Amino acid sequence: MDEDSQKFIGGKIVRGESPLNLEMPFEKLESFITPTESFYVRTHFPIPSIDRDAWWLHVEGDVENPFAINYEQLLELGSVTIPVTLECAGNNRNFLEPKVKGVQWGLGAVGTAEWSGVPLAILLDRAGVEANASEVILEGTDGGMLEDPKSPPGQLHFARSIPVEKARADVLLAYKMNGSELPPEHGFPVRAIVPGWYAMASIKWLQRIIVTDQPFSGYYQTIDYAYWKRRGDMAELASLTEMQIKAQIAKPAQGETVPANFSVRVHGAAWTRDGEIRKVELSTDGGSTWSEANLLGESKPNAWRLWEFNWQTPRTPGKQTLIARATDSLGRTQPVLRDADRGTYMINHLLPIDVDVR
Amino acid sequence: MDEDSQKFIGGKIVRGESPLNLEMPFEKLESFITPTESFYVRTHFPIPSIDRDAWWLHVEGDVENPFAINYEQLLELGSVTIPVTLECAGNNRNFLEPKVKGVQWGLGAVGTAEWSGVPLAILLDRAGVEANASEVILEGTDGGMLEDPKSPPGQLHFARSIPVEKARADVLLAYKMNGSELPPEHGFPVRAIVPGWYAMASIKWLQRIIVTDQPFSGYYQTIDYAYWKRRGDMAELASLTEMQIKAQIAKPAQGETVPANFSVRVHGAAWTRDGEIRKVELSTDGGSTWSEANLLGESKPNAWRLWEFNWQTPRTPGKQTLIARATDSLGRTQPVLRDADRGTYMINHLLPIDVDVR
Repeated sequence: MDEDSQKFIGGKIVRGESPLNLEMPFEKLESFITPTESFYVRTHFPIPSIDRDAWWLHVEGDVENPFAINYEQLLELGSVTIPVTLECAGNNRNFLEPKVKGVQWGLGAVGTAEWSGVPLAILLDRAGVEANASEVILEGTDGGMLEDPKSPPGQLHFARSIPVEKARADVLLAYKMNGSELPPEHGFPVRAIVPGWYAMASIKWLQRIIVTDQPFSGYYQTIDYAYWKRRGDMAELASLTEMQIKAQIAKPAQGETVPANFSVRVHGAAWTRDGEIRKVELSTDGGSTWSEANLLGESKPNAWRLWEFNWQTPRTPGKQTLIARATDSLGRTQPVLRDADRGTYMINHLLPIDVDVR
Repeated sequence: MDEDSQKFIGGKIVRGESPLNLEMPFEKLESFITPTESFYVRTHFPIPSIDRDAWWLHVEGDVENPFAINYEQLLELGSVTIPVTLECAGNNRNFLEPKVKGVQWGLGAVGTAEWSGVPLAILLDRAGVEANASEVILEGTDGGMLEDPKSPPGQLHFARSIPVEKARADVLLAYKMNGSELPPEHGFPVRAIVPGWYAMASIKWLQRIIVTDQPFSGYYQTIDYAYWKRRGDMAELASLTEMQIKAQIAKPAQGETVPANFSVRVHGAAWTRDGEIRKVELSTDGGSTWSEANLLGESKPNAWRLWEFNWQTPRTPGKQTLIARATDSLGRTQPVLRDADRGTYMINHLLPIDVDVR
């Protein structure tokens, strides 16, 4: 990681200005809930400026009663509030060697907020999803022209699909983040929250929900936000979906100096999808030996779990390599090595953090 | 088209040497059957050197009896001989403005040969295709590593899938081209012929046939050899399949000089899929007026139809723009303008040929 000459906006690391991409310095991790102003920002186009009073969300496609709903009407529907961890599918990308294209995220393209909104299931029920429907396409207001020669010509909007079962299960149309109105950069007035999936699925500035009986193969789930899945020895393009289990160390941070022969608090966060984090292990010797960290707070579905470990640093000064490793209730853990089939995404292999003991 | 400093190999225009891509100069079109030595050559990797006596074709996947068959055994099965026109999906690419990536084919990445071989249906019946199977993947021996960062890591083989119904209908496993053994550059010892589809589906150097109940999304039908299909205002990535109707002028060629006030033979070929060519019209004034050309020979399914027109050239010298336009028995004709959603493929809009009348 090259952290030299780094630019900051509002305490966040600038990974791109146009479109705006901002990362939380992960060593600032302090609490289960990430303050909204620290939460990473991921955009693909200029941030849409939306008049809430003129905003309509359309529900259409393979439904019995297509309809549109405005902001006021949406707020009258039953709402829920849940903490959900969102992680960018390219989080940790700047650890990859050799360097790959894409926003060079370090550790901080991840965060947990309390999201309040209407379960998508309520809108789907109101529309009456037809029996043969298989997917729900979520489309944002954000859009424009892309320079990628592999992209469709003309204007396009950011859009992704999810299976109908997932859409019904726990997807939220959120209008509040940590108790306040969504800020423009987080999808004002309404965004989707797709728990357990990489955040590209949690469409911001939502404008359209299209129910369909055909698999959707838009740009952002084929050319972009896709990886290679093996069928025997053949590689097939597959759309990114669920987050992969991961533990990250917040402190000490990469390159930090810690005192020798001292008790140092190592802490961070760990997350998975579906199951829950059962164990976080820490190695302070580059992966030779492992010790179990303490899980903090209580387990909540689709949200990270904070953890800490009291590290008795060696008496002799020198470089030490810290590695954290998570295991979940479904027995899944992190791979040791990077799987090249994942391209520039789904980076959850063990990442070393080097610290100086002095 | 920039035809300056053009290189030739065996009378064919060199469009690439590594991998080898050779085009027939289309003004050499003389007969319904393209001589093998004039037939365009399209490769993606080095041409495999295959020992016929050690060659096996594997039929596997969702079948009751997977098996392998060798060359000798294949020749013992019932064979058919049919003329089929093959056209590269990127034929005419160097007419596109602005220039796009890819092999810069002119008019000659198309040809018609008599192919002899075993109907794929025979092999599928022998294997016993399971009821839920939907696609048949054809895999070539040709392969290697790609430089495209969007390609799967490691080695891959050229492979494409076709629907089971198409595979059963008329796909051939050809071992002869124009009555002789396939030359190495055309897929020796055995290649697929998929009538009516762009030629990327007619896998050469065939080594494996995999029946599957899952849509195949390999590199050569997603990242490559795909286009944008509209679903309302949304663009979706779709795999190239059927050839689009087209008429091409062989003579006079681009930039050719013809005598004024003279009867000049304009001739070429026209093709479509499914239906048959009903009409070829020619305009000698840039598309203002059209006259019907004479269709030559008889109509054969999935093969081009040659045509000719006696053009009484103007008395006054000057530039004249010739355009040919085909219409088929299903009422389809060529678009006037290029559809940008087709990217670098499926180029069948009206193409002007400029000639000098002197």
